[in-house]
Amino acid sequence: MEPIKPYKKEYEYSYALGAFPTFELLKGKPEQCSGVYIHSTFTEREKLAAACREKNIPVLSGDKTIARVSDKENVFVVGVYEKYSSTLDCSRPHLMLVNPSNMGNLGTILRTCLAMGIQDLAIVRPGVDIHHPKVVRASMGAVFSMRIAYFDSYEEYAKQYVTKERSVFTFMLNAKRQLDVLGCPKPALYTLVFGNEATGLPDSFLEVGESLLIPQSPDVDSLNLTIAVGIGTFLFTHR
Amino acid sequence: MEPIKPYKKEYEYSYALGAFPTFELLKGKPEQCSGVYIHSTFTEREKLAAACREKNIPVLSGDKTIARVSDKENVFVVGVYEKYSSTLDCSRPHLMLVNPSNMGNLGTILRTCLAMGIQDLAIVRPGVDIHHPKVVRASMGAVFSMRIAYFDSYEEYAKQYVTKERSVFTFMLNAKRQLDVLGCPKPALYTLVFGNEATGLPDSFLEVGESLLIPQSPDVDSLNLTIAVGIGTFLFTHR
Repeated sequence: MEPIKPYKKEYEYSYALGAFPTFELLKGKPEQCSGVYIHSTFTEREKLAAACREKNIPVLSGDKTIARVSDKENVFVVGVYEKYSSTLDCSRPHLMLVNPSNMGNLGTILRTCLAMGIQDLAIVRPGVDIHHPKVVRASMGAVFSMRIAYFDSYEEYAKQYVTKERSVFTFMLNAKRQLDVLGCPKPALYTLVFGNEATGLPDSFLEVGESLLIPQSPDVDSLNLTIAVGIGTFLFTHR
Repeated sequence: MEPIKPYKKEYEYSYALGAFPTFELLKGKPEQCSGVYIHSTFTEREKLAAACREKNIPVLSGDKTIARVSDKENVFVVGVYEKYSSTLDCSRPHLMLVNPSNMGNLGTILRTCLAMGIQDLAIVRPGVDIHHPKVVRASMGAVFSMRIAYFDSYEEYAKQYVTKERSVFTFMLNAKRQLDVLGCPKPALYTLVFGNEATGLPDSFLEVGESLLIPQSPDVDSLNLTIAVGIGTFLFTHR
């Protein structure tokens, strides 16, 4: 394997930083993993090395390499993987994020979706890079169990995935309908759409599907995006 | 006013960093605010200066002071305030956090609680400092509209606030009951208890009140704390 460098978006490889996300990489996308660096002081070496052997993945040494590719000092494991793209499953519910800009938020949202059983994420560009090591780490490796695809516009996504069986719900502060616990819609197939952290969805989305507002006190200007996604996905998946 | 320095926990004052949290300080706790620094390049000076004048709060200059007390480069306003403590309202629902350790999470939780109409927060020590500027900023100033009190133990809190009218619910992965959308309990008065980000609540909390599990896929080890608080508070406040 050629020497690895601190991550850049144009590279064809990226990293799972830390033991937990690396175990998730080995579980979810072992065919993409080209090697696992283990620090000389890592205490669970045996368990991780065994998991690598089982999947024929080389175990590598290089404490300096580990320090170089991770900003955080407490990283003892780096799983290197070839980046990949996915297509969404048209028979399953989707989450759509329009212009997500924060890597930590995206990671938390990936982990939340997976916890709710939503495994398909559409991202409308511009949007943060799902393969950035900060996203992978914030997702706790959930990214490796999701199907994720990028689109240049909502229309590009809709042409491919919005059939007459699929209902689309947009989460907006100026929505026409309030989302309440007992009255949450119950479509067979759906896409939940959330906007950017700072600006939300543009008003043009009022014309797309049905708009919903998560009720909130006037004392706060809006919910944090991750919290809104948590509440929205929970209600739709646990009706 | 004496010169201010980068925040330390032992100081009697702290800061709202940024215009938005400072406006919330002027709205929620004007009596605590001892002055507002406005950067020479800040574009909304007039509006902020007028809000200060209305409450008899001095407007201060000092671009170097602003740079010194804030790590972030995009801070143009610093609201200085005397720290304070509160007592909880015994006639209102409470959130309790046991050993919260992350400042960003605590800020997000404060903002979420306020959005749900829960304005009383009990923190069991050790727990992060609600007056740390990172918490204040992550809360978007919601901290100034909340009543927040620290306790050395759950028992200390219970002695003071848990009456026979108040039901206590603990959120735990090994809970006895699953929290579902339609079956959310409906007590008149309640306290919702959440544990530490990494370790959750100790098993001793299984004996306190009623334990609840937010249902989640086995593909994820647990929900992020902020998401769990978001879902839990939403269901209890919107039944």
